[in-house]
Amino acid sequence: MEIYFDNAATTKVPDKVAQAMLHMLTTNFGNPSSLHQKGFEAEKAIETSRQNLAQALKVNKKEIYFTSGGTEANNIAISGVAVANKRSGRHILVSSIEHPSVKETVRYLETLGYEVETIPTDSMGYIQIETLEQLIRQDTLMVSIMYVNNEIGTIQDMSTIGKLIKAINPKTLFHVDAIQAFGKYILTPTKDQIDLLTLSGHKIHGPKGIGAIYIKEGTKITPLFYGGRQENGIRSGTENVPGIIGLGVATEEAYDQLQDNRNHIEGIKKYMIARLRQDVPDITFNGDIEKGAYHLLNIGVLGVKSEVLLHALEELEIYVSTGSACSSKKKNHSITLSALNLTHEEKDNAIRLSFSKYNTQEEVDQFIEQLNRLLPILRRFKRK
Amino acid sequence: MEIYFDNAATTKVPDKVAQAMLHMLTTNFGNPSSLHQKGFEAEKAIETSRQNLAQALKVNKKEIYFTSGGTEANNIAISGVAVANKRSGRHILVSSIEHPSVKETVRYLETLGYEVETIPTDSMGYIQIETLEQLIRQDTLMVSIMYVNNEIGTIQDMSTIGKLIKAINPKTLFHVDAIQAFGKYILTPTKDQIDLLTLSGHKIHGPKGIGAIYIKEGTKITPLFYGGRQENGIRSGTENVPGIIGLGVATEEAYDQLQDNRNHIEGIKKYMIARLRQDVPDITFNGDIEKGAYHLLNIGVLGVKSEVLLHALEELEIYVSTGSACSSKKKNHSITLSALNLTHEEKDNAIRLSFSKYNTQEEVDQFIEQLNRLLPILRRFKRK
Repeated sequence: MEIYFDNAATTKVPDKVAQAMLHMLTTNFGNPSSLHQKGFEAEKAIETSRQNLAQALKVNKKEIYFTSGGTEANNIAISGVAVANKRSGRHILVSSIEHPSVKETVRYLETLGYEVETIPTDSMGYIQIETLEQLIRQDTLMVSIMYVNNEIGTIQDMSTIGKLIKAINPKTLFHVDAIQAFGKYILTPTKDQIDLLTLSGHKIHGPKGIGAIYIKEGTKITPLFYGGRQENGIRSGTENVPGIIGLGVATEEAYDQLQDNRNHIEGIKKYMIARLRQDVPDITFNGDIEKGAYHLLNIGVLGVKSEVLLHALEELEIYVSTGSACSSKKKNHSITLSALNLTHEEKDNAIRLSFSKYNTQEEVDQFIEQLNRLLPILRRFKRK
Repeated sequence: MEIYFDNAATTKVPDKVAQAMLHMLTTNFGNPSSLHQKGFEAEKAIETSRQNLAQALKVNKKEIYFTSGGTEANNIAISGVAVANKRSGRHILVSSIEHPSVKETVRYLETLGYEVETIPTDSMGYIQIETLEQLIRQDTLMVSIMYVNNEIGTIQDMSTIGKLIKAINPKTLFHVDAIQAFGKYILTPTKDQIDLLTLSGHKIHGPKGIGAIYIKEGTKITPLFYGGRQENGIRSGTENVPGIIGLGVATEEAYDQLQDNRNHIEGIKKYMIARLRQDVPDITFNGDIEKGAYHLLNIGVLGVKSEVLLHALEELEIYVSTGSACSSKKKNHSITLSALNLTHEEKDNAIRLSFSKYNTQEEVDQFIEQLNRLLPILRRFKRK
């Protein structure tokens, strides 16, 4: 039986979400831009999804924009804002543990003449608030910080950070990549003074190929591409109606069941930690396992390269990750673990376990059992 | 019973395509960038789809890149190429009857200092070859021409155009928006000297939110956005696996049944023309109804505003279009009909009928019957 502990990479779409999408593919298949009833029905479905997202974030419906995923959303939020607001400064701050869709986007902005500085984190992945305070300038256009880190689960104190940014420079825009936080936590962009917040469908049991941005009303933004001016001109192209509806239903599900899911998943994580500590020798933990995200656990398996363990486990249909799966395979190195000053060997031994509401304690037991069967063998073959 | 004559706006997804997508949503749901078997299975499915598209276009699999749709594909093909190749010139030629995703993209490039000129068409929508010949210069970076026009169905002679461009300037890149042509005709980009060809899923009974570009090997191109370097760095972001698989299956279906579908749809169109001519007074035809695309028919209904007729028909669950549905509603004006020098009244009377393999002669009969019932009433209320 398959054990899927890679839910931070992507998630299974449940029947309820899939059936809602199926209906939009085969029956309610109109083009939202069509003037007739069939177009209007598709548009109405989109607006219901937009309302679901707005409600989850406690923002206005017209502040939600759909994109083709988290990467496009991060690019619009960063490049689109940087280009539209360059008169208020060209200085951009990002944390040292951002996802490639943020890291690579600001690298591109550097080639356009923007000045990008990195906000350091401590060994748990927390933003150093005092340093951030010193880094914000009068020409700081934007600060971009990830809500929940995708590799070790560090949760930033967005309320403190938002207040600090706006106190130093009210014109500085605050972007939060909430891709690993949305659907897991109550997010309040308005309260936290967040101007742009990005999210993705396939991390919350919605489909791949869909994401969204909260853009605070009045924020100037330039589109990445041009055409029929859908999504209020921010994002042209016929809307991915089934994807949008999938994201809408998945959002509703996630927030309706938030506390139950949290209790369940947190239970899985705690049980995993307890069993690893008690029953598996030479396991370490990366990041803040107490206060970190409840669906994420990054462990170090002494003496075994993570890729070797990953492949040994996949033979048993147990799926884990060696780090972020958000990069194409060829470039799969960990930005986060590098920023945390782990040794080369520690990075090589890191395994990410990420849980969903579909995981069970029995799966944890099986995982522990198999780990104890595999590790003595794998450790024996360790290259000296 | 619903009669859907708006298949150039978007199409119904049949069960076979929807079921293939469902499997990728609920079962084979891995992230293609994951290193384990579940990621590999998703990647393998993507490569099968890529092969389906490559086979349809008779090109190399690695020359196919997936995007979030036709609009993004056109933007990558035009902006991405313009930015990457600006050293070979800044002169761009586009036809006067392009889709907004081309028209608006070159307008954006003008703001970056590119020089854009329009290639005129005749009253049937055909590119004036002699004028094109005069317009191509030594600094012409790109020529972009739509294969099948989305409003009146004009089919350009791509073989002649491709040869002409390359004879005058072999460095000029040739982009073809084939969104209305793909899946309906055998396309041979290599033979026609096309460097970039764009297509969309939802026009061929595939899902919305997915498209692709053929990019001839060796063509320099800059991405529109940045991240995990998926799609060989051209298009970052977790792949829309269900969408890609849907497009792959839809492509396979379209090309396996190409001749049968063509015979059927062409029959519907011819029958519609015959019945309109014989049984409905004061109907004109826009564009080349003999040599135009077999799935598209643009008619003028004398004395009735197209929007009024559209809404009268939708009451009967008959869905037609007043023009292109590819723009958001607020800006719904016809680029093509304006370029063809139709009078204001002629443009106001234009209705686009577009057919699919699911349409029947009985639907045409019902449409004619309802038209003959409605037109006398609507024409009576015509404002003088």
